[in-house]
Amino acid sequence: MLSKKIQAALAGSSAIRAMFMEGKELAAKAGVENVFDFSLGNPATPAPEAIKQAIKDLADKVDPLALHGYMPNSGFEDVRAKVAENLNSRFGTDFTWENIVMTVGAAGGINIAFKTILDPQDEVIVFAPYFGEYKNYAANFDASVVEVAPDFETFQPDLAAFEAAFSEKTKAVLVNTPNNPTGVIYSDDTMKGIARILSEKEKEYQKEIYLISDEPYRELVYDGAKENFLTKYYRNTIVGYSFSKSLSLPGERIGYLAVPNEAVDSKELLAGIEVANRTLGFVNAPSLIQKAVAACIYEKTNLDFYDKNRKVLYEGLTRLGFTCVKPQGAFYLWLKSPVEQEADFVAAAKKYNLILVKGSAFGCGGYVRLAYCIPHEKITRSLDAFAKLAKEYHLGE
Amino acid sequence: MLSKKIQAALAGSSAIRAMFMEGKELAAKAGVENVFDFSLGNPATPAPEAIKQAIKDLADKVDPLALHGYMPNSGFEDVRAKVAENLNSRFGTDFTWENIVMTVGAAGGINIAFKTILDPQDEVIVFAPYFGEYKNYAANFDASVVEVAPDFETFQPDLAAFEAAFSEKTKAVLVNTPNNPTGVIYSDDTMKGIARILSEKEKEYQKEIYLISDEPYRELVYDGAKENFLTKYYRNTIVGYSFSKSLSLPGERIGYLAVPNEAVDSKELLAGIEVANRTLGFVNAPSLIQKAVAACIYEKTNLDFYDKNRKVLYEGLTRLGFTCVKPQGAFYLWLKSPVEQEADFVAAAKKYNLILVKGSAFGCGGYVRLAYCIPHEKITRSLDAFAKLAKEYHLGE
Repeated sequence: MLSKKIQAALAGSSAIRAMFMEGKELAAKAGVENVFDFSLGNPATPAPEAIKQAIKDLADKVDPLALHGYMPNSGFEDVRAKVAENLNSRFGTDFTWENIVMTVGAAGGINIAFKTILDPQDEVIVFAPYFGEYKNYAANFDASVVEVAPDFETFQPDLAAFEAAFSEKTKAVLVNTPNNPTGVIYSDDTMKGIARILSEKEKEYQKEIYLISDEPYRELVYDGAKENFLTKYYRNTIVGYSFSKSLSLPGERIGYLAVPNEAVDSKELLAGIEVANRTLGFVNAPSLIQKAVAACIYEKTNLDFYDKNRKVLYEGLTRLGFTCVKPQGAFYLWLKSPVEQEADFVAAAKKYNLILVKGSAFGCGGYVRLAYCIPHEKITRSLDAFAKLAKEYHLGE
Repeated sequence: MLSKKIQAALAGSSAIRAMFMEGKELAAKAGVENVFDFSLGNPATPAPEAIKQAIKDLADKVDPLALHGYMPNSGFEDVRAKVAENLNSRFGTDFTWENIVMTVGAAGGINIAFKTILDPQDEVIVFAPYFGEYKNYAANFDASVVEVAPDFETFQPDLAAFEAAFSEKTKAVLVNTPNNPTGVIYSDDTMKGIARILSEKEKEYQKEIYLISDEPYRELVYDGAKENFLTKYYRNTIVGYSFSKSLSLPGERIGYLAVPNEAVDSKELLAGIEVANRTLGFVNAPSLIQKAVAACIYEKTNLDFYDKNRKVLYEGLTRLGFTCVKPQGAFYLWLKSPVEQEADFVAAAKKYNLILVKGSAFGCGGYVRLAYCIPHEKITRSLDAFAKLAKEYHLGE
């Protein structure tokens, strides 16, 4: 009765969402205060106060026909101009409103970028570990992902493996830095290497191969790391952005795609993206929230909130004997499972009301992901539960 | 460089959107007050005042983490419960929140319904004239539409032609009543006939065949016509709804799907829809607006606004000698082109700053569509322009 693709998707449904639902069930039983839910990237630091004021001002002052009405499928021109100006001032780009398409979150953005460029059987190279939904997004267009294993020391992409992953079917390479799930920031060397190999492969295969940059965590960087913007490395880059994390608006589904003029046939690409946005059923990004994020484009999230969690969690877990990748950005911590089958470790953790997500959901078994975007007191209290879990595995003994 | 599907979509892009953009260009030249833009279904009567108040109250009173945060992919449970209760009270259904999935508009809803049930090569029967995007929506899932010609007297579906349109590949039938573009309401007899034939075909082909009801205009009915709700006719019905017209929120992209318990494997179908919503990249309907429409669920649009336009336009055009289908619902008027090639008529109309959309965009050449959801004074002033157009074609002489 259901389509074959949806039957398959149901069978292998999102491990993140499944753990989120398990966490909700556990909270109903054990009390929400006793459950340490590290499953979902749902920011626990609120949207900036300015968002509230912007929403109220827009409701009060803007003609509702303009505020809630249709606009061009790519979004309000003034909103796109503000996004362009913001990027230009921060990254030295030279965008105008025409380089920007407002989207229904980054998930919507990546899907319309995929729809615009992917034909059936095309391949998209992804770097493991990676957000598992990418596989579904490629499958939407009868394309598939090709996984490249990481360097297991640094969790930077393995560039030799990357070079070997290309085929005639490669149409795009998807990067996500700061990375979900590892918290690693791809280094300047990594990005230069990726760009170099992409340029060589474009020549070898005589066609455009796109770098798609999924950047919801762009601003979430720690220890003095600089925010990066990837169009400077490679011309055929499509940037997908979301305000979900930077302004704590994940439920609002608001983001954008940016396509630089340097991309081959940039205008045609943008026209294709606009049509894809419409025909895939998004039509346009939600109107009021478009205007709200434009009004708050220079607002920042409370980075200290995450940084404090990051330090306490990383130090605490390391002290307990867990092996963790030190997070440099985003709000995820990547922890090596003490046993090969990390599903067993996830199950053991659940006994202590610790909700983790297994690494195999990100194409990288033997690890688990912790989303530390939760209240700080939960982080500190969770360490007692982690201590029991560590003891169960005889860690730090 | 672009995918083949998007290349094709760009070539045959939306005639409605194209005319909307032409109208904008013409307005820039001739002055917005001098252009009579009947192209787009963009309500010119504002959202009810209660929407503004609801948005401000939500911003003031609801914890921003809850207001802008993730929720289950199918939407906030309290919002879905309010939608269910509203439908139950009006149509005698027995929905709970579990029968409702909040969606990114009806376009998002139809797409995830399609993704949930359509396999490649499947066919969806549509009744001409029909919203041209349906073709793109089916193509998203490598399915296609099969057009059924109308009865050209009444613009009700031709049931004999409908019966003949089925094949082994038929997976769904899509209806849209009150209809875009004709303004016709499918009669009780029509709906009973469609349901009867569907039931027979389900038996004949030994499988579920879905009735998908696209209902953005459900509440826009005139002359004492009653609002209809199609689950009462046929069990395997999926209702797609949008608040775009009923609350004048087209830019906000907010709607829902409703699946009755009577549908075969209803729970599985709803689970599939939830996964499709996530994996196609919608993730969830925008959060603040979900809560705003729930707070305003019993609000009504200004129906008199449209009714007044309807009467003046229909009477005016008829008096001038044009042949029109009398609109019963929605906010469209379907006018017979005085010449066979209605594109010529559309071009002639443009000379008088009248922006119309050709019927062939709706799978029905020889007609044009007028969206009369524009300010009333524009309607009255447009009649002078239509008079000149009528004269050019020697109508009413």
